[in-house]
Amino acid sequence: MTDVASLERRLAEHRTRIEGVLEALFHDRNEVSTRLEAAMRHGVLGGGKRLRPILVYVTGRALGAAPDALDAPAAAVELIHAYSLVHDDLPAMDDDDLRRGNPTVHKAFDDATAILAGDALQTLAFEVLARSSHPRLGALVRSLTEASGRDGMAAGQALDLNAVGAQPSVDALVEMHRHKTGALIRAAVRMGALTAVAETDARVAALDRYAAAIGLAFQIHDDILDITGDTATLGKTSGADAAREKPTYPALLGLDASRRKAKGLLDEALEALAPLGENGSPLAELARYMIERDH
Amino acid sequence: MTDVASLERRLAEHRTRIEGVLEALFHDRNEVSTRLEAAMRHGVLGGGKRLRPILVYVTGRALGAAPDALDAPAAAVELIHAYSLVHDDLPAMDDDDLRRGNPTVHKAFDDATAILAGDALQTLAFEVLARSSHPRLGALVRSLTEASGRDGMAAGQALDLNAVGAQPSVDALVEMHRHKTGALIRAAVRMGALTAVAETDARVAALDRYAAAIGLAFQIHDDILDITGDTATLGKTSGADAAREKPTYPALLGLDASRRKAKGLLDEALEALAPLGENGSPLAELARYMIERDH
Repeated sequence: MTDVASLERRLAEHRTRIEGVLEALFHDRNEVSTRLEAAMRHGVLGGGKRLRPILVYVTGRALGAAPDALDAPAAAVELIHAYSLVHDDLPAMDDDDLRRGNPTVHKAFDDATAILAGDALQTLAFEVLARSSHPRLGALVRSLTEASGRDGMAAGQALDLNAVGAQPSVDALVEMHRHKTGALIRAAVRMGALTAVAETDARVAALDRYAAAIGLAFQIHDDILDITGDTATLGKTSGADAAREKPTYPALLGLDASRRKAKGLLDEALEALAPLGENGSPLAELARYMIERDH
Repeated sequence: MTDVASLERRLAEHRTRIEGVLEALFHDRNEVSTRLEAAMRHGVLGGGKRLRPILVYVTGRALGAAPDALDAPAAAVELIHAYSLVHDDLPAMDDDDLRRGNPTVHKAFDDATAILAGDALQTLAFEVLARSSHPRLGALVRSLTEASGRDGMAAGQALDLNAVGAQPSVDALVEMHRHKTGALIRAAVRMGALTAVAETDARVAALDRYAAAIGLAFQIHDDILDITGDTATLGKTSGADAAREKPTYPALLGLDASRRKAKGLLDEALEALAPLGENGSPLAELARYMIERDH
């Protein structure tokens, strides 16, 4: 129990740090459009698990990066995640009214402003990276674009749109999630690593295997929570996947097999950390936490 | 007449070059989502004036950059322009069915795919820059993000949304266009310049004055064409601004005063080119062409 309490405390510290970094992006601004900027703030500030920035911080620290050097990659990956949520929630996409217990951006503002706010949050991700003057800026931008564009998240979302109402194979579902959520989780780990070491370092490849496994495990766990969780704990509408006839792991495999699959992926992730030795233990701890959370 | 024919020929060469660069982005692809990628192609290939890449090429060449080094910045700025058109045409925004004489992306595909295609075109802009391994990558990414995000194009679009049906002052209209279209035109010129010289070079500031003037002149001329042009020549619905009660320069100032304003801005642009000497003449020629075009 002490370990969990200690982990929760460290996660809270990372969350406080990224929250400050993200909030600072909206301080001392000479705003051109106050409405656009308010919508951007609504989309990115005030909560969320902040899993991706936490992965940047924990990975980077495990390899010896200075915390200050990790702020820009952590913010960039969260800004990309935030933009994708703003757009995914739109009526033309998933049509969600509630996100993190609050009205979604298009409900709090309007559809057009939500489209622009998502667009500008994406732009801000690359601006934050470019302003950091990171020596491996090119590799960081490439990692983030490959994870989020037509080879990653956006493509996964397109696959997901076409899958609604259909009954895909488990392989097709894995392929969809590998892009839709997995790619950005891998980018978070990779960007944390690249802040400390070069792309050619063998630990970067090991961490990529770790991230691929926890990314999929995280999604399966999310699907399970959509069935077993309640709306108040989740901060979003529970049972939404089933109501929308979205294909999920539990729907295809059943709850028990889904839980076993998530556990198997956790084992894979822990094995992948071997080359990091003792330095990998915060990442191992985080992986366990990610598939045991109840929200 | 010989000069115009010669200019048209050089513009056509630049257009052929950028068309090839953009098409190559879709060759030899292991596509994750064929539908997403088809929508992206629809949004960026097959026409358009290609004004922004032309400005990158002409500016970069005027300062001595190699053509090969200009391909990535030229493509990046056009990808940002293309993404903004895809999103601006959406029903929640300008709700346009026709673009360059073809169905807009959401008409040819669907709203959700158009949102994702726009998102992925933006991402691709930064990917193309990052892959170019440009020595001034940070400055190029900063130029493009500042021009297109909450301090530039996206903010201008937000101001424009709020202006529909209202009667703004001429100053407010200038402010809106300075962000909505002017910022990206300035970025095109700046990125062309930064491919050849450092940010501190005095010619970069001179070129920024040039670009600010032609950017506004271009927009005023566009507003004039919306009244005086016909749909077939424009490739988009003529009279659309008036029908939508969008504020325009001719609506506020009248046609004659708008034409004089555009001419005054052209003179400003030509004066700004003085520090470039003879090397500035292709840019002067391009500026004249931009406010004398009939489409």
